[in-house]
Amino acid sequence: MKISRILVINRGEIAVRIIRTCRVLGIETVLAASEADKDATGARLADKTVVVGPPPVSTYLNIPVLMKTALEAGAQAVHPGYGFLSEKPELARACADNGLIFIGPKADHIHKMGNKLVARTLARECGVPILSGSERVNAFEDVLKVVEQIGFPIMLKAAAGGGGRGMKIITENERDRVRPIFEEAAAEALAAFGDGSMYVEKYIPNARHVEVQVLGDKYGNVVHLGERDCSTQRRHQKLIEEAGAPNISDAQRSEIRAAAVKLAKNISYESAGTVEFILDQDTGKFYFLEMNTRIQVEHPVTEMITGVDLVQEQLNVADSGALPFTQEDIHFNGHAIECRINAEKPEENFRPTPGVITRWELPQGPGVRVDTHCHHGYKVPFFYDSLIAKLIVHGTDREHARRRMLAALDEFSVEGISTTIPFLQKVLKTPDFAEGRVNTRLLEKVL
Amino acid sequence: MKISRILVINRGEIAVRIIRTCRVLGIETVLAASEADKDATGARLADKTVVVGPPPVSTYLNIPVLMKTALEAGAQAVHPGYGFLSEKPELARACADNGLIFIGPKADHIHKMGNKLVARTLARECGVPILSGSERVNAFEDVLKVVEQIGFPIMLKAAAGGGGRGMKIITENERDRVRPIFEEAAAEALAAFGDGSMYVEKYIPNARHVEVQVLGDKYGNVVHLGERDCSTQRRHQKLIEEAGAPNISDAQRSEIRAAAVKLAKNISYESAGTVEFILDQDTGKFYFLEMNTRIQVEHPVTEMITGVDLVQEQLNVADSGALPFTQEDIHFNGHAIECRINAEKPEENFRPTPGVITRWELPQGPGVRVDTHCHHGYKVPFFYDSLIAKLIVHGTDREHARRRMLAALDEFSVEGISTTIPFLQKVLKTPDFAEGRVNTRLLEKVL
Repeated sequence: MKISRILVINRGEIAVRIIRTCRVLGIETVLAASEADKDATGARLADKTVVVGPPPVSTYLNIPVLMKTALEAGAQAVHPGYGFLSEKPELARACADNGLIFIGPKADHIHKMGNKLVARTLARECGVPILSGSERVNAFEDVLKVVEQIGFPIMLKAAAGGGGRGMKIITENERDRVRPIFEEAAAEALAAFGDGSMYVEKYIPNARHVEVQVLGDKYGNVVHLGERDCSTQRRHQKLIEEAGAPNISDAQRSEIRAAAVKLAKNISYESAGTVEFILDQDTGKFYFLEMNTRIQVEHPVTEMITGVDLVQEQLNVADSGALPFTQEDIHFNGHAIECRINAEKPEENFRPTPGVITRWELPQGPGVRVDTHCHHGYKVPFFYDSLIAKLIVHGTDREHARRRMLAALDEFSVEGISTTIPFLQKVLKTPDFAEGRVNTRLLEKVL
Repeated sequence: MKISRILVINRGEIAVRIIRTCRVLGIETVLAASEADKDATGARLADKTVVVGPPPVSTYLNIPVLMKTALEAGAQAVHPGYGFLSEKPELARACADNGLIFIGPKADHIHKMGNKLVARTLARECGVPILSGSERVNAFEDVLKVVEQIGFPIMLKAAAGGGGRGMKIITENERDRVRPIFEEAAAEALAAFGDGSMYVEKYIPNARHVEVQVLGDKYGNVVHLGERDCSTQRRHQKLIEEAGAPNISDAQRSEIRAAAVKLAKNISYESAGTVEFILDQDTGKFYFLEMNTRIQVEHPVTEMITGVDLVQEQLNVADSGALPFTQEDIHFNGHAIECRINAEKPEENFRPTPGVITRWELPQGPGVRVDTHCHHGYKVPFFYDSLIAKLIVHGTDREHARRRMLAALDEFSVEGISTTIPFLQKVLKTPDFAEGRVNTRLLEKVL
């Protein structure tokens, strides 16, 4: 490998995750950390940690400082993790301008897939089904025109980004409130992404979120690593993810995997990426939602069932390597589930609970993996999202994985801060989850 | 499952290991612990802990007290782990006498395989190759008679047990010392096993230790779960184990697996067992060594490459279940390595280092598993063996696993006591180990 030193410009568990693979590969790591993150496990495991700014999120968005840090550290490449700058084409371009390898796809891919309307068009052009919907809508009157064609319910969406920001469902009953809802959504999108462009899609009430992991290299090779179900969400935030997707037919599984590979091949996609779909459970049909041009939070469930190290493959492809396997080499073993464990108090509307961890005993044993940046005595900072650990388990089948997850959550002992562990246990024990009847509204019944 | 509560009559990491699987299966656990073990992780994870005696090893050998504890606790079954009473037919018989299920094979299997001479005969009878050697030898003159037939070097072995006790190599040069060596070995065997019976086998100087994991049920089904290489030993104690065995041909692999299944089928073996072989690297031939009628310390490497939970299968078979898979259902994925981490000081002849652990940070992440009973603040007791953790890693191939092991050992942070971690790192980095040129004398070069 030509890359011998990288700068990791992220924090939390994903910084640790990236550093671990680099340690296995013999690649040196320099961690760019904010003042609030210098005591996390990432800083212990990196070969070197550079404090690049004060605690706020803006430290992890400061491209000039991060580029300067990379160059001064002698890094040849930059790993952006997820969130923060990972889907900003500006970072990929700044890397190119500074002679640094961006560990991710081309800036052009990030740019195109970052605009959800462009992504819809790309999907449609290569025959991947999309939801009925609109181009950009500039005012509520445009929304009403779309409704005339596709009917209620609809979903208003921000063109410039995902993650639930700027997303609003409008039902038949809210026909008279289209204007204020549209304006509120557009304002939210503008605040979140600096761009208030909106579009409309048909809303699927009985839906599942299913996504396909793909990997591409510079030589036109694309493979998929199977699908993940991420339907168990709260306010469009995934809480529990699994691989493979339960209760879908072999035909559906093949269809969605083929669609993801087709899209990725069509745009000559490089690096790890995720093609997200919505499954309408009333009709059994899949529709393209968006493509994420980075490593996902939920990538470990795919690693658990395929044995592939996705960060290693990102590094390999960024280093101009060809994929070391073909589709036929990928085998799927058993089932994996991931729980995102947050420092939050579910009974107080999931209020974040930053603070000092006074007891931290992690589950261990067969089929159990924990990705975390926390440790005994660690202070969960106030400034960032509340994810403190990802607990991932593997089982011979879904029920085995679910039982291992329950046992592992029970073994996970945290004191000093409130966590979502008891809430996750409740969700995993519901008959709906236990029997794989997951959908995006499952949690409404639990909350 | 009929079994709903078991008594675990062991300590250390294997107690934790057994309890974890029970928690997944919904089986209640009662842990029989000595006074010195009541603060270990096993006691935290068991549903109930009963202190059954003072610290010395004898507490874990006290069958009457353990039977009474099982009955008073309302357990239907007893898991013996490894070591201690696990290979004493007396325990299996006492369980039967008390209406308790022994989680292991029949007393008769333990009895026969416990006598290494009987085991040799059973292997020979079903066509499994054994080393040239003798029946019981009663005096040094008998040894000399055997030497006339098979020549030096020879190995003196105790008929009543393994683990290196009573084992002595005698070379041509020591022809005049056969008498004192024989007498010393017999005395050692008598002290260790209460039985000084000895026999002779041809000694293979350029040898590897390769063993096959088998599983049998009450219905005559036997499958193998592949082989493990455990050649990396110090004084006949395994330190590093791996699955599968490196650098053997497909023909050798098939031959040894078939031989193990043949032996297990021939005796209608039930539960998990291990058939151990010695591979003569000069001739490429395998010879039966012994069969262990219990779960092995190194079982996790097999779990890592097959996805099978061996403790779960022990419980299932003990509960009269049939094996849930056939040989064709078993697939082997990648490579796994286990390092036994001991509280010892390698530079002082591996002197045990009991004491309080003041820092305990475990490696985590993709492909990493730690089985341990220790925790921050735990006091490693003086009374037992020095194993404090097993670190097991999985990789796509052996080199990937080796690199992951090195990274994980580096991440493993222990303070307060000395451990063998630096020594293991040295071994893993030797060209011999890196290239899979393992053999039972590899460590002589490192020490």
